Amino acid sequence: MRISELAERTGVPLATIKFYLREGLLPAGVATAATRAEYGEEHVRRLGVIRALTEAAGLSLQQARTVLALVDSPGDDLFDTLGRAIAALPPAVEPADDYPRARAVIERLGQVYDPRFAAVAQLERALEAAEAAGIPLEGERLEVYGAHVRAIAEFDIAQIPADPAAAIEYAVLGTAVHEPVLAALRRLAHQDVASRALP
Amino acid sequence: MRISELAERTGVPLATIKFYLREGLLPAGVATAATRAEYGEEHVRRLGVIRALTEAAGLSLQQARTVLALVDSPGDDLFDTLGRAIAALPPAVEPADDYPRARAVIERLGQVYDPRFAAVAQLERALEAAEAAGIPLEGERLEVYGAHVRAIAEFDIAQIPADPAAAIEYAVLGTAVHEPVLAALRRLAHQDVASRALP
Repeated sequence: MRISELAERTGVPLATIKFYLREGLLPAGVATAATRAEYGEEHVRRLGVIRALTEAAGLSLQQARTVLALVDSPGDDLFDTLGRAIAALPPAVEPADDYPRARAVIERLGQVYDPRFAAVAQLERALEAAEAAGIPLEGERLEVYGAHVRAIAEFDIAQIPADPAAAIEYAVLGTAVHEPVLAALRRLAHQDVASRALP
Repeated sequence: MRISELAERTGVPLATIKFYLREGLLPAGVATAATRAEYGEEHVRRLGVIRALTEAAGLSLQQARTVLALVDSPGDDLFDTLGRAIAALPPAVEPADDYPRARAVIERLGQVYDPRFAAVAQLERALEAAEAAGIPLEGERLEVYGAHVRAIAEFDIAQIPADPAAAIEYAVLGTAVHEPVLAALRRLAHQDVASRALP
């Protein structure tokens, strides 16, 4: 399809598509004449990915570029590349020497504590805020949250594609776009449960 | 305790505490002399709440004021007040006439679709992004996410305090501070499950 059809098909403005092409986020089309190029389904898909990263996940263009570079060149160690791709997602948290609250929670859940993984610092900050708010993650709440989140994560990982580039794209996008889905579902479930339980 | 002790005890700078007092976010202490006031445990707790709202949940001072006003004056209809307090939390989403994706998901989960509730618009936007990213919430993913999120929400609501002001504070803070906790736990569970499953 022509670039104008690509814009129409995806709803992304022509000027934005040209900007992504210049910035290297979107691969060039196949040149069919001096000023004409042909775009395919992979361009439609890539625009959806860029939109999901920049709009839903709130990444800057520079962060989206980092993630897309990892998708395009996954490297040999898939697990390591996955970790680096997820670490590019917000929220950015200043690294520390130790994460005592996160360590206690992770060990209690029987998982391996590895402070190099970005989500450990994110968990520490979130736990600190919960503690300051007077509703720390401990006791039965920790058991309940841990068990149900793990069940969700097991489902997610079972769907991971075998192809390394597709796997990284799936992992990053699945983390980024499903976090707000899960948060909104929880708010709505609160409303539904409360409407039945409250006097 | 004196205001200087309150600062020391909570780690909130003295200038910030004075600012909260001037802005009416923190109630005044009990005057014991012309330039001296006594602060108590309720001030320690309130500072934790303000910090959780503005730092962890990312609310502006104006939004925090809205939430605290609802906590301080819950009104007669607890369910309605809860809804208004949760609606003050980010993300702010432009209202629309209809939310077709959210409606389909909510009905599939057997919950009541009420477009006046702010989380419906949030869910619609999140579902749109997931669709654009090529991993829509449908089929088994919808069943799995829906069931586990509902179990978490049932636990949350079972802990809700009976006192209306405490209930609103708990609902708002629990929504705000536990969303990042759940997101970080999911990222860490992904890492743990993947490290066992990947070659």
